[in-house]
Amino acid sequence: MVSLMAHMQFSIDVLERFCNDAFEKFGFTSKEAGIITDVLLLSDKYGIESHGMQRLSRYHKGIEKGMIKPQAKPEVVFESPVSAVIDGHDGMGQIVARQAMELCIEKAKKTGMCVVSVRNSNHYGIAGYYAKMAVDKGLIGMSFTNSEAIMVPTFARKAMLGSNPIALAVPADPHPFIYDASTTVVTRGKLEMYRKAEKPLPDNWALDAQGKPSNDADLVLRNILAKAGGGIMPLGGSEEVSGSHKGFGYGMICEIFCSVLSQGLTSNHTHTDGKGGTCHGFVAIDPAAFGDAKEIKAHFSTFLQELRDAPKAEGHDRVFVAGDKEADALARTAQEGIAVDVKTVIEMKQMAEFLGLDFASYFGALELDESGFETLY
Amino acid sequence: MVSLMAHMQFSIDVLERFCNDAFEKFGFTSKEAGIITDVLLLSDKYGIESHGMQRLSRYHKGIEKGMIKPQAKPEVVFESPVSAVIDGHDGMGQIVARQAMELCIEKAKKTGMCVVSVRNSNHYGIAGYYAKMAVDKGLIGMSFTNSEAIMVPTFARKAMLGSNPIALAVPADPHPFIYDASTTVVTRGKLEMYRKAEKPLPDNWALDAQGKPSNDADLVLRNILAKAGGGIMPLGGSEEVSGSHKGFGYGMICEIFCSVLSQGLTSNHTHTDGKGGTCHGFVAIDPAAFGDAKEIKAHFSTFLQELRDAPKAEGHDRVFVAGDKEADALARTAQEGIAVDVKTVIEMKQMAEFLGLDFASYFGALELDESGFETLY
Repeated sequence: MVSLMAHMQFSIDVLERFCNDAFEKFGFTSKEAGIITDVLLLSDKYGIESHGMQRLSRYHKGIEKGMIKPQAKPEVVFESPVSAVIDGHDGMGQIVARQAMELCIEKAKKTGMCVVSVRNSNHYGIAGYYAKMAVDKGLIGMSFTNSEAIMVPTFARKAMLGSNPIALAVPADPHPFIYDASTTVVTRGKLEMYRKAEKPLPDNWALDAQGKPSNDADLVLRNILAKAGGGIMPLGGSEEVSGSHKGFGYGMICEIFCSVLSQGLTSNHTHTDGKGGTCHGFVAIDPAAFGDAKEIKAHFSTFLQELRDAPKAEGHDRVFVAGDKEADALARTAQEGIAVDVKTVIEMKQMAEFLGLDFASYFGALELDESGFETLY
Repeated sequence: MVSLMAHMQFSIDVLERFCNDAFEKFGFTSKEAGIITDVLLLSDKYGIESHGMQRLSRYHKGIEKGMIKPQAKPEVVFESPVSAVIDGHDGMGQIVARQAMELCIEKAKKTGMCVVSVRNSNHYGIAGYYAKMAVDKGLIGMSFTNSEAIMVPTFARKAMLGSNPIALAVPADPHPFIYDASTTVVTRGKLEMYRKAEKPLPDNWALDAQGKPSNDADLVLRNILAKAGGGIMPLGGSEEVSGSHKGFGYGMICEIFCSVLSQGLTSNHTHTDGKGGTCHGFVAIDPAAFGDAKEIKAHFSTFLQELRDAPKAEGHDRVFVAGDKEADALARTAQEGIAVDVKTVIEMKQMAEFLGLDFASYFGALELDESGFETLY
């Protein structure tokens, strides 16, 4: 991890109160603001800084520009006992997605499983949040989203797919299995960290506008924004020998559950002409449709423990199964609160001023050096 | 691709006749032999040499050793309108898997979707075959299988997961989207090709028994067979910076649909004490559960064409979407027949002798130099 940033520590309660109030000021109902806050804070509690408070300014800009419509109400446009298509009507991604996964869980509880596909939504935060919703009800959950095109297909030189994360959560002891990752080799956020640190990108991460390998984070990020060509490679890099076509394939699996089943915008058509148009996909499966849910959970938990107990590679003393790092971070942040990048704190202060909220009433009189600071988005 | 092997060209008809007769001799019914042959030949027709005729000797040994039981009849041990668990009773993987996917399709046609999880089976050939079965009926299909442990989890030094392929097939024009790949960076077959060619493995593919990176294909393969430690890395290599944890995560997704839902053997427990115990997973989704199936197909086909038409990276003149190479190979092998490695032809001849089949009556009097040849498995 590359990080040059200073951080300030805040209690979860204060951040929660601030976010709730801010989103109410943007025009969301109290319940809706609570949902958005819950999604953002879970990311920070999991230690995934890129998708928590750091995203506030992006949502702020999205609402300001009219890409995100706070008054929109998601609409079920097609459904069966095991499926639904929802039109988000350009609403806030978290609101649309939460409603979609609630419907997915409700149907899966009745029938055994369900897939819900969503179109015309916006950035929905961490994919894992919605997969975990299913686990909280004893089900297996999956969550997918497309996004602005950043992934260059194998042998192409133009970004055509999003970071296209796939999340899967499965009930387990002592804590759920939660896998959540982009199908690109890294996310855009990681490139932003390399740019801030002025470090060259590792090989096989990115292409320039001409389709040549590039180690220049700033150049690649500018090209993505300008849709000038190039972008980030799929998991597996740029060559078939390292499995580039596999990362591309996983990106496609994501796209199918999101934009194909919902007939929404594929990643390459989202985020044009001031419209987001992001699509999501959700799956819920009741283990009870396959036998005794408790036995299945115990069987899986045994396997997870065998993986943790496997002999370690040279230089390593721990094997992490998906969800272990999240569980560690949950325990740590519950004790210590959440560390927020100073740059993000400044953005939050700017947002408070824009909304007419008294920033100091939440965070006290912070000493922030705002000179030379410009909002990233 | 590394290949030092000489090949002989055969017509599809002759190979089909030979396989059918051979599997009948092994004790399968004529219908069952036809299914096994169909799976093996589709692999060769798709140009996936590793899973076609080349596997015959492995199945031969599996049946001889009693790991594969030709008389076994798969049994549905749990089911609901959207799900089933099948016990393969150590039968031939292709027979068990084909029956499982047929049930999956039948249920999905009625309800909109279905997941079938299978335990106590054996190697089932290419995962894509079963995903394609769904496409042939107008559905979206997925297919998963675990296998003998070859994948070393991130930061471990012992193989704990199989090659754990994920296959997804989706109706599209001019031909279906068919994604089918292992979740390891490469399969064991690729290492075998490097060993035959006496070439060093690329970096980040494999670990030795001590958990150190290894470029020695022979050493790694021997360690896997002896369960001595080490193995092949997940897609993404050995470090988190290149996404190793993501390949490991996809391997886990596969495992969950196979051994977790069926409560069968996880990869690390398969292939011990003379038992295979392979588990599979199958998904079928009817696009009609999300709207007009024809419109969904057209929408997806447009996206696929946009991907093919994307500007190309330096040094490349074609972007392949999953299924394109298979379509090319289908057309080519329909014209030219199938090229079979001479070593494989010798194995087929040995199998014919074992079974009391007149090899020359299928293939004529071939001149084969069998000196110094030993069967690999």
